[in-house]
Amino acid sequence: MKKRVLSGMRPTSKLHLGNFLGALENWKRFEGNDCFYMIADLHALTTEYNGRTDIKDTVLEVAVDYLAAGIDPDKVTLFVQSAVKEHVELGWILAMVTPIPWLERNPTYKEMVQSQPEKELNTFGFLGYPVLQAADILLYSADVVPVGDDQLPHIELTREIARRFNNIYGKVFKEPEAALTKTPRIPGTDGRKMSKSFNNAVFLADAPADISKKIRKMVTDPARKRREDKGHPEVCPVFTLHQRFSPKELARIEKECRSAEIGCTDCKEILTGHLTEFLKPIYEKRQELIQQKKRLYDILEAGNEKARAVASEMLGRVKEAVGI
Amino acid sequence: MKKRVLSGMRPTSKLHLGNFLGALENWKRFEGNDCFYMIADLHALTTEYNGRTDIKDTVLEVAVDYLAAGIDPDKVTLFVQSAVKEHVELGWILAMVTPIPWLERNPTYKEMVQSQPEKELNTFGFLGYPVLQAADILLYSADVVPVGDDQLPHIELTREIARRFNNIYGKVFKEPEAALTKTPRIPGTDGRKMSKSFNNAVFLADAPADISKKIRKMVTDPARKRREDKGHPEVCPVFTLHQRFSPKELARIEKECRSAEIGCTDCKEILTGHLTEFLKPIYEKRQELIQQKKRLYDILEAGNEKARAVASEMLGRVKEAVGI
Repeated sequence: MKKRVLSGMRPTSKLHLGNFLGALENWKRFEGNDCFYMIADLHALTTEYNGRTDIKDTVLEVAVDYLAAGIDPDKVTLFVQSAVKEHVELGWILAMVTPIPWLERNPTYKEMVQSQPEKELNTFGFLGYPVLQAADILLYSADVVPVGDDQLPHIELTREIARRFNNIYGKVFKEPEAALTKTPRIPGTDGRKMSKSFNNAVFLADAPADISKKIRKMVTDPARKRREDKGHPEVCPVFTLHQRFSPKELARIEKECRSAEIGCTDCKEILTGHLTEFLKPIYEKRQELIQQKKRLYDILEAGNEKARAVASEMLGRVKEAVGI
Repeated sequence: MKKRVLSGMRPTSKLHLGNFLGALENWKRFEGNDCFYMIADLHALTTEYNGRTDIKDTVLEVAVDYLAAGIDPDKVTLFVQSAVKEHVELGWILAMVTPIPWLERNPTYKEMVQSQPEKELNTFGFLGYPVLQAADILLYSADVVPVGDDQLPHIELTREIARRFNNIYGKVFKEPEAALTKTPRIPGTDGRKMSKSFNNAVFLADAPADISKKIRKMVTDPARKRREDKGHPEVCPVFTLHQRFSPKELARIEKECRSAEIGCTDCKEILTGHLTEFLKPIYEKRQELIQQKKRLYDILEAGNEKARAVASEMLGRVKEAVGI
């Protein structure tokens, strides 16, 4: 039986390789199911409320990323969160039954507030991120929510909020299951997790020459200072990418790195070759799509319509239960 | 020049004499201005999320109260908060710029969470009450917000939120002014402030016989135990009501109470006479209106339409500024 799947990404920047492998590629596992994929622009606003980010433009870039990566709008429902008003409406209704301590103990919340003081994330909106996310999921009665492991506490909160609402008002919501991404952590060019905030990302929108430049600057095994030093692939972020993109040469690269037969420059050139080969079709599709603004808007509007139909039916049931 | 006025009440129950004197009558001061009066059903949900209150029915009762009390829907815009989606939308957007400490230090919040533990008010929605209220006010660029003094901190918060938003995104919002009700505290039948929660209220929907019964049971000067004891009008809640409803006999009542010439029973009968005389036209208008469901829905829908037109224009400006 087809499952209802819901997932989404925040349009805080164009998508990068980590997003592709961690989310978009993961979504392909669910082909043939009833999938809703969202561009979560209101969630972007929780952290990017500085007045400098044009979220509207990024929404379009992310739509292009989704499509170029192979998401087929004829087979899934692709929509923009803020275009479906039921999200904010259900968000406020769920707010009424969500105890503050449930939100305060959310590890992602605490970690982000502390690690990014310059963003002033101690806001009501950022604390309520999981409440709005619960609305996103519960509106569509999602069976499955594909997520990375940092999102697991949010899915658990969604289940708790659904349960509390159902206890008070009678069964309205289905408790969703998380489906964990199997892709391991993708390193960025500085060796940390690839992230738009760290300025270490290879974007799907990067031209082959840009990719080549980024990989050339990528950090490697810090103990291998000179060409003749032997390498330790297990700590080298370039090697981590080889594991994904150079399967046929992997054994040879590992051996020649350990014995210093191959230098980092050559090793990176091999990676660049495979990576640009892998990303080139996505890049070219992107170049084509970004010109077709009207078609993009049409695709999003058609998706928004489909999402609204499902969301408004559910919100009607919620309002009936709540008595407003 | 006409001012834009916004106010509203929560439909947690039918309205009582305290609401009438404290709010509805106060609103009459603004006749001739551009007034928006809201029935704040989402705010009702912040405290009445127990699954037992039918807020939808109470919305209609409160609409009847407004109209019976003389609010003229041809001259003001009378609308239901949840019917104008822009409130929840702007509520989430303002949430992004509202620091949690601003909400936590709100005295009304702290007091209510502590004084009504059975209601479990430590929720995200109740903490966010002033954020949603700021959205209510700022959507209409209200110049003036008529409120009771317990609401002053909320209006101040609205001003602070507007200022922070304007600082980040450029000037979009007007900072509203509070207009304090001049009516003194109206005592209920138990001597405490008249309130639906205390079960001590005289409702606009009460028939004359019910009013008479309630006043007969009303507490008086506790030191006056027997008929022959002298009374102390300054501590007697019945006398407080006389001050408002029996202006011509006030001096005589005060004198005869102090000298024990008049007993509490007779004193209450005088009050009942004046009070039922005052409330009878409202009661009769109510009886008539409550039969006209279709007309009531038409009035509310017309008001909702007018409110939506103003609110959606403002929300458009907000989204433009924010970039979503």
